[in-house]
Amino acid sequence: MKIPELAALYAEDGSRRPKTRIHIGETVVGRDFLAIAGPCSVESEDQILSAAKAVKEAGANMFRGGAYKPRTSPYSFQGLGRMGLKYLKKAGEETGLPIVTEVIDTRDVFLISEYADVLQIGARNMQNFSLLVEVGKVNRPVLLKRGMYATIEELLNCAEYILNAGNPNVILCERGIRTFETYTRNTLDLSAVAALKGLTHLPVVVDPSHATGRIELIRPMTMSAIMAGCDGFEIEVHPHPETALSDRDQQLKPEEFKLLMEEARRTIAFRDGALCTRPERRALVPV
Amino acid sequence: MKIPELAALYAEDGSRRPKTRIHIGETVVGRDFLAIAGPCSVESEDQILSAAKAVKEAGANMFRGGAYKPRTSPYSFQGLGRMGLKYLKKAGEETGLPIVTEVIDTRDVFLISEYADVLQIGARNMQNFSLLVEVGKVNRPVLLKRGMYATIEELLNCAEYILNAGNPNVILCERGIRTFETYTRNTLDLSAVAALKGLTHLPVVVDPSHATGRIELIRPMTMSAIMAGCDGFEIEVHPHPETALSDRDQQLKPEEFKLLMEEARRTIAFRDGALCTRPERRALVPV
Amino acid sequence: MKIPELAALYAEDGSRRPKTRIHIGETVVGRDFLAIAGPCSVESEDQILSAAKAVKEAGANMFRGGAYKPRTSPYSFQGLGRMGLKYLKKAGEETGLPIVTEVIDTRDVFLISEYADVLQIGARNMQNFSLLVEVGKVNRPVLLKRGMYATIEELLNCAEYILNAGNPNVILCERGIRTFETYTRNTLDLSAVAALKGLTHLPVVVDPSHATGRIELIRPMTMSAIMAGCDGFEIEVHPHPETALSDRDQQLKPEEFKLLMEEARRTIAFRDGALCTRPERRALVPV
Amino acid sequence: MKIPELAALYAEDGSRRPKTRIHIGETVVGRDFLAIAGPCSVESEDQILSAAKAVKEAGANMFRGGAYKPRTSPYSFQGLGRMGLKYLKKAGEETGLPIVTEVIDTRDVFLISEYADVLQIGARNMQNFSLLVEVGKVNRPVLLKRGMYATIEELLNCAEYILNAGNPNVILCERGIRTFETYTRNTLDLSAVAALKGLTHLPVVVDPSHATGRIELIRPMTMSAIMAGCDGFEIEVHPHPETALSDRDQQLKPEEFKLLMEEARRTIAFRDGALCTRPERRALVPV
Repeated sequence: MKIPELAALYAEDGSRRPKTRIHIGETVVGRDFLAIAGPCSVESEDQILSAAKAVKEAGANMFRGGAYKPRTSPYSFQGLGRMGLKYLKKAGEETGLPIVTEVIDTRDVFLISEYADVLQIGARNMQNFSLLVEVGKVNRPVLLKRGMYATIEELLNCAEYILNAGNPNVILCERGIRTFETYTRNTLDLSAVAALKGLTHLPVVVDPSHATGRIELIRPMTMSAIMAGCDGFEIEVHPHPETALSDRDQQLKPEEFKLLMEEARRTIAFRDGALCTRPERRALVPV
Repeated sequence: MKIPELAALYAEDGSRRPKTRIHIGETVVGRDFLAIAGPCSVESEDQILSAAKAVKEAGANMFRGGAYKPRTSPYSFQGLGRMGLKYLKKAGEETGLPIVTEVIDTRDVFLISEYADVLQIGARNMQNFSLLVEVGKVNRPVLLKRGMYATIEELLNCAEYILNAGNPNVILCERGIRTFETYTRNTLDLSAVAALKGLTHLPVVVDPSHATGRIELIRPMTMSAIMAGCDGFEIEVHPHPETALSDRDQQLKPEEFKLLMEEARRTIAFRDGALCTRPERRALVPV
Repeated sequence: MKIPELAALYAEDGSRRPKTRIHIGETVVGRDFLAIAGPCSVESEDQILSAAKAVKEAGANMFRGGAYKPRTSPYSFQGLGRMGLKYLKKAGEETGLPIVTEVIDTRDVFLISEYADVLQIGARNMQNFSLLVEVGKVNRPVLLKRGMYATIEELLNCAEYILNAGNPNVILCERGIRTFETYTRNTLDLSAVAALKGLTHLPVVVDPSHATGRIELIRPMTMSAIMAGCDGFEIEVHPHPETALSDRDQQLKPEEFKLLMEEARRTIAFRDGALCTRPERRALVPV
Repeated sequence: MKIPELAALYAEDGSRRPKTRIHIGETVVGRDFLAIAGPCSVESEDQILSAAKAVKEAGANMFRGGAYKPRTSPYSFQGLGRMGLKYLKKAGEETGLPIVTEVIDTRDVFLISEYADVLQIGARNMQNFSLLVEVGKVNRPVLLKRGMYATIEELLNCAEYILNAGNPNVILCERGIRTFETYTRNTLDLSAVAALKGLTHLPVVVDPSHATGRIELIRPMTMSAIMAGCDGFEIEVHPHPETALSDRDQQLKPEEFKLLMEEARRTIAFRDGALCTRPERRALVPV
């Protein structure tokens, strides 16, 4: 479907609430800001428990960690699988944080749904349509990441696969697109965030860790994303980044994440207080 | 030169002030926020004078307008040339706003320097090295726009052409890069803004008008750019966008720009007050 | 893995034959030129049988057709599924042509292996690592298409997933990458074909239909691909393109494909006769 | 202008000959295959004379060399300027080869026209509209290179600038576009060559040296380009590439170029003999 038709769906279809609200634990995504944090990969029980406690203390309201890892090379660490899911569940129970983890195989959807509160579809699987249909059948919200090569229109069509399969709880995630620029790992497309807020009623979060691949750019890009109107973010935090088994260069230390959360809280308060963020205002038509 | 060598130049070379400060009229670029506004093209004396008064009243501290237009097609409006320069100068005198206008030919540099306070190098001429050397020889600050295909490294090397020719007053401008996404005119690369602030001592401004090509995205992208650490912005404003001879779809109406300026002022105050923007803090190393 | 390591694998690993030869029916891929043709989608028994007979008569040595279709929108035709597989098998039996069809779900690999001679992994699933591992376990050659956003290095790593799972019979396919150019559907990267021939021992085929999306460019790009050193091609042919349920603008009519095959035969004969195609010669080092 | 309008210009405008023929020395570009060769930069009289003799002997019918070099960094070798022009002229006189060299400044057009037979507009200056107009006023054919970020439509519009200024002798050159792929220096877009042959009456040549940036890919891409329908090529050849002051990794040795020319001759003969290259045939409509 083309963007005008997609946008029309949200305007006309009564079953799509004016603004989608997704209840996860005590958080109402779309109303409350969603701060997802945690390591790239689940590496051990200690690493996961200490990471979960650290991000909880810093103020995150959802914990992330990869048990099944889509890695470029088959010879890289592929994740702990089911054991990783157990550690994640335990971390969730000990901290009270809801858990989000990636699903990369249609056959794992049911299993992972028993351990995780939210299912993540990674960028490389955005157009794995069988997987989209499968997560559309379970009673778990889905965090759908934009493919590194995907247009806004394609991302919205992938969300349709999930919605159409019966699952209305989809959270979109901008995580950077692939361009000619090599200084950053990807190019964070914040105009897509503002555009999506006007085109769909689904919540939109941002992943500045994968988008930039550089520690020093994560904080400014997080604040920028907040002002672009995002409903949350997903940030990689690791107790000891220098020892991480994946994404070593882009995971924050707990104390760095704590600083980021402090600034994020002030920035969100400023945005929602001092600035009107209604789309029609965003459209710059004077009130 | 590679980025590490370029960054080293700023660290080691004493002649490059800790943070470049560029005095233009009463504004000190790099210290004061630079709000450039005005129409894409100079179309008539009335249009220019009314545009200049409107943006001045809204709080802009520099006026823009194109007298020599680089247009994709030779059959499109090419600008008023010298007559356009006269209108710009008059607008500057009546409003007290410094003028920035684009130079597209080495032979025009001296002439345009007599009318304009700042010389703009457009994205299509970023690697017009003869032109860079020529503007490097005159006593006018230069607004250097990033090419739509240019890496951060290439942009910095182009700045070197101007600095190396003897002109230390260069302002860098991120205006969106060309990607596969077609919903926006270009893809605004705000991570480049944060990156440049750490790599060079030159001021960095953002052009959300050309980057997005969509009215409704200009305001949110402006606020995002501010939080990314930019030192200013350049925004297209036209008294009657619907009648514009170029860029009809991305020029704001004066009242829309007024609204944007109000929010921008609050956002800048918040950023510079509530958030520390020192690079080392941006690097997320706890103080 | 990085390209040098990947290339080294082929040089050192004895289990990787000097040049991979894949026996499919009477064709030895890597020695004989592989001409795959057929419609984008399986639409009906008649359509498939007439298409298969037409491409067989024109000289194709493999028949393609999609039973499970990865479509951008969930509201587009999704393919006939198992019924489509039955039609394909029947077409194979009636014409003696081996069948290649796409698999998009790990759960379908076994089923599809019972109907098809070759399993295709589409561009959107190139990094569906679970699927790669699954097709790596069956006794069927795999046609692996390059993702529209994938580097040569990433394509080779995906082939490693299949090889590493135990299936040595992988055929790589260049089908165009996504760029800023909109005149063509994608941008055919023929330098990748020549590069891959030097980097790996796997056969490389080209898909000019998806790469260009334009009827008039398919023939010249096919001849260009042959001179780039490809081991075959995959071209969409439909008995009545104007009525096709998908890719209407890029499917050839049988008589157009017949013409293309005639020229392709002459071009292949010329290349393999008049030109030396050994990589070392390709490397332009005088003999 | 949009592509349909541009294509219409060629169909309707009588002043645009059915197929543009450009007489340069004894070569009629558009009828005879144009083989341009020579070093990236003019470095010394000896280097230029030995390079010119070598490419002449190998069968080139035009000699190239850069006297004014657009370099990414101001601290790299910038070319010998006027002295370089003198060497080029002498090389032309001694070998009888016409000379093509790049012009990068409107002020140099007249001067360079006195030394060179053909003026080259480099990729970085494709949209330097003042320069296009200036070369449109002189009595010298122009070799217009596609910008690394430019669409086919933009390239055709730039040709219009030259044609519209009064110079009908424009040769288009595909030299690779910038994409996410880093294995090759750029991505050679051969579908653009076939497309341009159908859209315009201007000759189209290909530069596989800058497109690939890799010695081993130049030969196969040259043969591919011939089959895509190009009217010629431009290839970098240096007597001693390992000592070159620029583009060291992509310049062929004379003996490598000799080999390439032999294969190119056979490939051109095959294409123009065995294959019909009329656009309508290329369009695959059965005769």
